[in-house]
Amino acid sequence: MTDEDEVLAANAAFYSAFAESDAKAMDVVWARRAPVACVHPGWEALVGRDRVMESWRRILRGGGSSPITCSSAVAHLLGEAAFVTCLERLPGATLIATNFFVREDGRFRMVHHHAGPAARPEAAPAPPRTEIN
Amino acid sequence: MTDEDEVLAANAAFYSAFAESDAKAMDVVWARRAPVACVHPGWEALVGRDRVMESWRRILRGGGSSPITCSSAVAHLLGEAAFVTCLERLPGATLIATNFFVREDGRFRMVHHHAGPAARPEAAPAPPRTEIN
Repeated sequence: MTDEDEVLAANAAFYSAFAESDAKAMDVVWARRAPVACVHPGWEALVGRDRVMESWRRILRGGGSSPITCSSAVAHLLGEAAFVTCLERLPGATLIATNFFVREDGRFRMVHHHAGPAARPEAAPAPPRTEIN
Repeated sequence: MTDEDEVLAANAAFYSAFAESDAKAMDVVWARRAPVACVHPGWEALVGRDRVMESWRRILRGGGSSPITCSSAVAHLLGEAAFVTCLERLPGATLIATNFFVREDGRFRMVHHHAGPAARPEAAPAPPRTEIN
């Protein structure tokens, strides 16, 4: 398995844990020793593993399956670190996410998740539409 | 200068280049060899240095100063990589950003910028408000 495959598999494991509301699997996804943080959509950054995992336990507490799917995942490799940009599709909303990983004990584990709406807010700087089409 | 100081200085250099519409300084901030990407608020991910720098040249082309300020910056160190979470304040909008850096030729350079609105969208998963207050 290439590093790219490994990173994309780690990213897929995150969305699988999310979609299945599996708090234990979500815990396995995240780094044990490296510093972790998380930006849930529109919220301030949560810093530290305890706060991040508590937020996930609360989000996933409802159990059952969540209608979230990941698409357009692209891995960007940085040696022992990597990040993935992707889209998250939910009923009525498309989010854009960045997931950052570091290699810990031989496998890529998540150290940061940042997701926000994929719709341009007013007053925010952005390139002309021609730039990305 | 500690690694934390260096990362926060690199983050500050990014916002200084942004605020001063200095495309040359912005170019210096970004990594030369490592893969780079960028998520401007609400847009799809731009992948590759050429596309990312072209987007910045367009954003900064107006010249003059931009009323953007960075606050609440927190550096998270991962050896030869690091990320910063921070708030971006603009007239009428507060954005939340994650900026990723890797050490390249002895200094931290940006490999990814992801900014989005710091206001909760409907239909997006988020922890209860009590979680972050």
